[in-house]
Amino acid sequence: MSVEEEEKSFMNLNPLRNSPIITTEEENTMFNFEDYVAEKVNQVNDALDDAVPVNYPKTIYEAMKYSLMAGGKRIRPLLCIAACEAVGGHQSAAMPAACAVEMIHTMSLIQDDLPCMDNDDLRRGKPTNHKVCVCKHSLNPLAGDGLFVLAIEQMATATPGVAPNKVLAAVRELAKAGGVEGLVGGQAEDLRYTGSNQTVKLETLENIHLRKTAVLFEASVVMGAIFGGGSDEQVEKLRIFARKIGLLFQVVDDILDVTQSSEELGKTAGKDLAVDKTTYPKLLGLEKAMEFAEKLNGEATAQLTDFDRKKVAPLVALADYIARRHN
Amino acid sequence: MSVEEEEKSFMNLNPLRNSPIITTEEENTMFNFEDYVAEKVNQVNDALDDAVPVNYPKTIYEAMKYSLMAGGKRIRPLLCIAACEAVGGHQSAAMPAACAVEMIHTMSLIQDDLPCMDNDDLRRGKPTNHKVCVCKHSLNPLAGDGLFVLAIEQMATATPGVAPNKVLAAVRELAKAGGVEGLVGGQAEDLRYTGSNQTVKLETLENIHLRKTAVLFEASVVMGAIFGGGSDEQVEKLRIFARKIGLLFQVVDDILDVTQSSEELGKTAGKDLAVDKTTYPKLLGLEKAMEFAEKLNGEATAQLTDFDRKKVAPLVALADYIARRHN
Repeated sequence: MSVEEEEKSFMNLNPLRNSPIITTEEENTMFNFEDYVAEKVNQVNDALDDAVPVNYPKTIYEAMKYSLMAGGKRIRPLLCIAACEAVGGHQSAAMPAACAVEMIHTMSLIQDDLPCMDNDDLRRGKPTNHKVCVCKHSLNPLAGDGLFVLAIEQMATATPGVAPNKVLAAVRELAKAGGVEGLVGGQAEDLRYTGSNQTVKLETLENIHLRKTAVLFEASVVMGAIFGGGSDEQVEKLRIFARKIGLLFQVVDDILDVTQSSEELGKTAGKDLAVDKTTYPKLLGLEKAMEFAEKLNGEATAQLTDFDRKKVAPLVALADYIARRHN
Repeated sequence: MSVEEEEKSFMNLNPLRNSPIITTEEENTMFNFEDYVAEKVNQVNDALDDAVPVNYPKTIYEAMKYSLMAGGKRIRPLLCIAACEAVGGHQSAAMPAACAVEMIHTMSLIQDDLPCMDNDDLRRGKPTNHKVCVCKHSLNPLAGDGLFVLAIEQMATATPGVAPNKVLAAVRELAKAGGVEGLVGGQAEDLRYTGSNQTVKLETLENIHLRKTAVLFEASVVMGAIFGGGSDEQVEKLRIFARKIGLLFQVVDDILDVTQSSEELGKTAGKDLAVDKTTYPKLLGLEKAMEFAEKLNGEATAQLTDFDRKKVAPLVALADYIARRHN
């Protein structure tokens, strides 16, 4: 099977499909992941477009909107919605949170690409924010901040009918993901080692990835579960699931950086090697890194066994997609 | 009276003091503003010190703490506490919000001083964050973000006994102050005009100052009033008061930039003129700018007439201090 065929055939990635306990009838009622993703991504894109108006001052709103609407797989919003549905909620309850996590993710991309950070030119197959707005360089960090704050503001506002304590819990999840325990701390620690001659231990690398990636996955899934009406027990199981696949996402990202081309990735490939960055393939070797990815995927989906099999299918498929994606 | 004597004699700045309706008895019970400020600033500094631990990763916490603890007049926390007391609350109810506004203010200072923004070397009489952490340049925006997120997180967490809807209202105020309607939008618009040949109208200048300064003053005072248990009517009067003195603060800042030395200011003086920045003195002339400042002070304190005279005295004195400060 070609890479293209494999990518299109999402259902083959679902381990439950080969499970002997799934009957043909069940299999027939299982959703089409490709259609699911296409539908939800469209809805998320519409919601994001609505969420960022182009008011005065236009320059900053346009910079925010440029990066937010420049494509992207929308994995975090999809996880948020899928977690909401996994506990029996309707996706509309998760949509404000789904938008919020994508805004925070986009903020982190803008910052990562800045000249004082990774100084990257290509993101999501398009020129990075600081390459487009080169005449107004200083707008870049502001656009990132604007998106972050908008995420918090909309989260704290656009949740009619939800108990204030649940909204507050969601705000705390978002803040944790964006702050020193999350993106800020992860990026700071990452920068400390990049280009230095210090040996990075596996424990440190995992800590960086947990902060840079897994904590936002966690916020996405936990907020979705909270707004979907999940029990405390369900929320905690989904929290562990999300941390595992967050780490998985980063391990795969490290692997793809050495195995794929810039064209396939939609961003500069081989970047980690070029700046001598510590990655899982560098520390473990490519094969062991791939085994570790499989292990994380298994540990993640193991958290989902007590959930309704049909309702949780999108989450399972998303985990598999994260494990086996090619960009 | 020398400048020094005038600065020390805060009570002379209180317009109510010369009001014929104040009796000698009332005057004797009026508080000592100097002692009030000294006491509250110490308490705020202790609370800020507690609010930012130096955990892993140390580099980022240290960068955050450096700028947060580098002195400063703590006007926003003082306003927050004074507003809480003005509606009959105890200062302890306002302390988390007081810390939050100072963190967000410090974030904006770090960003303002960045090489891609104002590129300033001196702040609060000390080298700016990016001058101290010159070997880890990219930590500067992260330190700012870290402080902003910590402010939101602590606000959403450290408010035991307060109704969640009140905490959410406070989070919304903070987010508005930090986002495009506030600091981010103000800074973006400010940068658009700085060094350009475009004529800035008075309306645009006021809009920039409202966003860059007044919205955070507003958040400080409104959050203090909310946590102090103020009525909706009280909160709205204090909101107008805060916007007026926020704008006043910036008008005075513009005036001081042309009338004071760097030594007196604790930051680079004459900077606005050097970069041909539009300011109130530039648009209105120095005298008219000073008249405008007096007008704003009068309009602000007029909002406070229905409050308990004794409880509101710190707010009145703070407004006067802002109008007549020398740095």
